[in-house]
Amino acid sequence: MTLDWLNDPVKLADQTIAGQAVTRQAQLTKPAGSLGMLENLAIQLSSLQRSGHPSAEKVQITIFAADHGVAAAGVSAFPQEVTVQMIANFSAGGAAISVLARSLNATLEVVDVGTAVEPGELPGVISQRAGPGTANLQVEDAMSSGQLSVALDAGRAAIMRAKERGMELFIGGDMGIGNTTPAAALGCVLLGADPGQLAGPGTGLDSRGVAHKVTILREALTRYDDLMKRPLEALRCLGGFEIAALVGAYISCAQLGIPVLIDGYITTAAALVAVRHQSEIRDWLIFSHQSAEPGHQAMLKALDAMPLLNLGMRLGEGSGAATAVPLLRAACDLHNNMATFADAGVAES
Amino acid sequence: MTLDWLNDPVKLADQTIAGQAVTRQAQLTKPAGSLGMLENLAIQLSSLQRSGHPSAEKVQITIFAADHGVAAAGVSAFPQEVTVQMIANFSAGGAAISVLARSLNATLEVVDVGTAVEPGELPGVISQRAGPGTANLQVEDAMSSGQLSVALDAGRAAIMRAKERGMELFIGGDMGIGNTTPAAALGCVLLGADPGQLAGPGTGLDSRGVAHKVTILREALTRYDDLMKRPLEALRCLGGFEIAALVGAYISCAQLGIPVLIDGYITTAAALVAVRHQSEIRDWLIFSHQSAEPGHQAMLKALDAMPLLNLGMRLGEGSGAATAVPLLRAACDLHNNMATFADAGVAES
Repeated sequence: MTLDWLNDPVKLADQTIAGQAVTRQAQLTKPAGSLGMLENLAIQLSSLQRSGHPSAEKVQITIFAADHGVAAAGVSAFPQEVTVQMIANFSAGGAAISVLARSLNATLEVVDVGTAVEPGELPGVISQRAGPGTANLQVEDAMSSGQLSVALDAGRAAIMRAKERGMELFIGGDMGIGNTTPAAALGCVLLGADPGQLAGPGTGLDSRGVAHKVTILREALTRYDDLMKRPLEALRCLGGFEIAALVGAYISCAQLGIPVLIDGYITTAAALVAVRHQSEIRDWLIFSHQSAEPGHQAMLKALDAMPLLNLGMRLGEGSGAATAVPLLRAACDLHNNMATFADAGVAES
Repeated sequence: MTLDWLNDPVKLADQTIAGQAVTRQAQLTKPAGSLGMLENLAIQLSSLQRSGHPSAEKVQITIFAADHGVAAAGVSAFPQEVTVQMIANFSAGGAAISVLARSLNATLEVVDVGTAVEPGELPGVISQRAGPGTANLQVEDAMSSGQLSVALDAGRAAIMRAKERGMELFIGGDMGIGNTTPAAALGCVLLGADPGQLAGPGTGLDSRGVAHKVTILREALTRYDDLMKRPLEALRCLGGFEIAALVGAYISCAQLGIPVLIDGYITTAAALVAVRHQSEIRDWLIFSHQSAEPGHQAMLKALDAMPLLNLGMRLGEGSGAATAVPLLRAACDLHNNMATFADAGVAES
């Protein structure tokens, strides 16, 4: 297995097409700028898709699921077996993301990148395991280099499938009991922040639980220095298999030319790793929502990201991103189908 | 014509059904509260619709269009003939709200409540005119009592049609060159605010234009006192025909039991009049978005409203509300179709 593909060049947005989209927006029957961020979305998708008719109809949602050694330290309100139980729930169509994916007519797939106990064969679940969960980052490196490769490749494989299917938008989701802890660890290292700033309640810790999480994170971080400049090494030492798969997916999207809609806290940590690895990847990322997890804001700020929604969501699974898809579709629909001032015989300002 | 109906009782949300909806949300396979405002929306719609299966599939969008005498004072970036030109654009399907309504599969209708020049017969446009635009509020009362009645009744008639059609959600839209001026005037009177706080650029005034608008508003307001406690009289003296129709529509929705999704600045001014007329109407209003018009925030605050979206939109026509409909649909879909912990065999926290 080789990781050479991680340094392949990223596709660039087409600035000529972006300019044409800006011109078209100014001709549509509305006061200039009055559709706000919907105008920017249409222009961005147009330039990324290199098309005068941007589209977010064909959406692939891939949930990467894995377990975390650090769960043993009691950093989650839920027991670890919930990771596998939720994989079964995704497969059976009962989870939030299942419901949202159906109504969006999106392709939904689940990749087991390494749960503690194997979920067994389930419809719609792909097995691409890096191991039976990561090691406990509190006391040792979360994964080996070989495991990191497997997980990054699982992300890349999902995007190869998306490319094959002609997908216009990719959403990565996460499932992994305990995964706000590795996400916070990555945020701390890459932003130079203290765990007190980035650790939060996750699925429902009380203030004592959050304080415990901060202690564990501080302990883990003392083992390393200078990871800030080595994002993939930070990912290996402190990340999770599903986070690594998301990083691989985002890098691949930028290389293969598929726009990404980022979900919440976990996926933003993965986005941060990907962008620190190669800064041009940032152009391919659209941020869907501001999570209720308090540390999310610091990561969004570091990525210069203005999320579309702020609904107090904090579920993961790609659910915030899926909720925002209709905004992208509306943006495209307005851009493609509104009348111009000339068409409609409406006077301009 | 009588306005007795304005004081008919408002329907009440069903608190038993609200409690059942809260219980169901806690049983769905997600951490408690992790769907944020989507949970509140489902619970609110459930209690308003008195149903364990809330729905926002059947949506009626009615755009009320009218002209404003104060346009002669140069308070808009667009000429007055644009009101009628946009009615034709709505009818032909080329406006932003036309595009959004199609993709939502919503019923879209336009009511001419009084443009300066009649638009003539157009498909989908209902004529229910209170006059050829209002008088100029800078120098005289905007409308007579008779005109106010006609406009309020036009709003009520739209809701009678919605009720007849079994609609589950109502969106009122506005079209009227110059109408941020009467909306600001109503806000000033009802909030006890100075025009400097509530007047903004509207469709695109520069700072000099905004200052001019403030001067005109201050001049108008000197003619009246104690309108704060008489919202319908404020509406007659300072409002517009389309704003009055929106007020009539919102009052009727609360009386007939149809939840309302409020759009932006103009519709929020109408909502403020309706709620000051009868405070129980507030329960029926869901606020879709925070407009870029700076005075919108003060009105939202007075209504204790937390809008769903903040995308910098400022178009009117009901476009912000239409953009938010998928959030209500997602909220209902999740509430109705997610598996419970018991169904899915997932462990609780």
